[in-house]
Amino acid sequence: MMTVTRLDVADARLLIEGAAAHAAGIGVPMCIAVTDESGNLVAFERMDGGKVTSITIAIDKAFTAAAARKATHEYGEASQPGASAYGIASAIGGRLMVVAGGLPVTVDGALVGGIGVSSGTPAQDREVAQAGIDFLLECR
Amino acid sequence: MMTVTRLDVADARLLIEGAAAHAAGIGVPMCIAVTDESGNLVAFERMDGGKVTSITIAIDKAFTAAAARKATHEYGEASQPGASAYGIASAIGGRLMVVAGGLPVTVDGALVGGIGVSSGTPAQDREVAQAGIDFLLECR
Amino acid sequence: MMTVTRLDVADARLLIEGAAAHAAGIGVPMCIAVTDESGNLVAFERMDGGKVTSITIAIDKAFTAAAARKATHEYGEASQPGASAYGIASAIGGRLMVVAGGLPVTVDGALVGGIGVSSGTPAQDREVAQAGIDFLLECR
Amino acid sequence: MMTVTRLDVADARLLIEGAAAHAAGIGVPMCIAVTDESGNLVAFERMDGGKVTSITIAIDKAFTAAAARKATHEYGEASQPGASAYGIASAIGGRLMVVAGGLPVTVDGALVGGIGVSSGTPAQDREVAQAGIDFLLECR
Repeated sequence: MMTVTRLDVADARLLIEGAAAHAAGIGVPMCIAVTDESGNLVAFERMDGGKVTSITIAIDKAFTAAAARKATHEYGEASQPGASAYGIASAIGGRLMVVAGGLPVTVDGALVGGIGVSSGTPAQDREVAQAGIDFLLECR
Repeated sequence: MMTVTRLDVADARLLIEGAAAHAAGIGVPMCIAVTDESGNLVAFERMDGGKVTSITIAIDKAFTAAAARKATHEYGEASQPGASAYGIASAIGGRLMVVAGGLPVTVDGALVGGIGVSSGTPAQDREVAQAGIDFLLECR
Repeated sequence: MMTVTRLDVADARLLIEGAAAHAAGIGVPMCIAVTDESGNLVAFERMDGGKVTSITIAIDKAFTAAAARKATHEYGEASQPGASAYGIASAIGGRLMVVAGGLPVTVDGALVGGIGVSSGTPAQDREVAQAGIDFLLECR
Repeated sequence: MMTVTRLDVADARLLIEGAAAHAAGIGVPMCIAVTDESGNLVAFERMDGGKVTSITIAIDKAFTAAAARKATHEYGEASQPGASAYGIASAIGGRLMVVAGGLPVTVDGALVGGIGVSSGTPAQDREVAQAGIDFLLECR
């Protein structure tokens, strides 16, 4: 048997709250998804004005970051033409996301979940995801 | 051209808050999803202990209720063997849900979204979805 | 944060070993799948002569039993025409299995995973899944 | 009529045993999948710590290697921008894998199955898959 640490819905709400505050600050309404450490959805919000395509993209960014234990922008670099993971972007029915905006959530050294953000530029998505994590860690 | 009335993320949070309070009251942790009037996800929460299978089921119940403008339990009756909508349960890749727990959200006569609940019995799912709607209407 | 107990690959091998021994005893080669408590695959074997269709069915039975925390035969009863969960069989893209042969795996009161068996009659699939659980518990 | 030579579940276990031993030696827990010559799954193990995203990726690497009779890294080269198989990575709903780690298994000149490995770098995945094949051939 194994013992696993996983974020709960209260943690997920903090991640979304921190991310949404930052998104509002930069004026970009976002879709924000949080999964547990196995990649299963715990909470999601589409801010007013968030994109419909971004619903699935945000969920899949969070899934990828948690379940592969890797930030999606790292896959972006590793999957460029000629790089070693080229082609990985269409894996798992296209769920494996290589666009920035998905980050693993690590607390006290344990990967407890993932956060995925979409609707802005990939750089904006990534900074909003990071803001969610920063807020969660501040609140602890 | 048309003008559409649609719930926003603040409304979605009230729906989830009301539903989650009722779910806690009956001791059944639930997955709760809210879509807009087009069936696209606005907010979602998996209460601690909600089932993993219920993530998709709750989202699809909300999708069905909003996009088909019909409670999922009504489809349950209409899709029995010999009834007129028999077979509809596997439509849209299985997204069309005929199990109770998905309700359209109507405000001032306009269908503005859907709520879907899963993890309990279908009767519990339905009553928790209704509690979400009741709370939203009380808060207005 | 939450703490979760989950079976490991050594546990999964015992589940498969016990199930396969019983399947050999009744002369029915089976597909046998084991998932963790979140429904993600840990181990799988198709015994020589197991059916190709049963690969996915066994995996989805284990997924359903673990992620919905319910034996698939219970869904079989609850989803008959006229029963409350009628129509659930096509949920989650058809992954939610209502045919016997998927059982949750509970150890010391915690649901730690699921086992799914397919290739025989549903009754045979169920008894082989149970034999896997019995063997795991004997070995502890 | 044709006669087909195909690995059996005992062969599949040897492939996984050899691959897992090498993975343990390099300290990277892997998902390891074995398919028969038709691309259908025979056995799978997720070592403790293997990634959840790698479940599907390992299975699809083994599927690709066996069913296309080509190592997935060969597709990686052939599918680069400007190369002849550009775009093949998203074929079959994304199941055709072009990332290293999937190898055909050939015994006495006959392609009898495929092995797919995922969770490390593509180079690690490939060497672990090769270690599985080497072990199978040693045991014969």
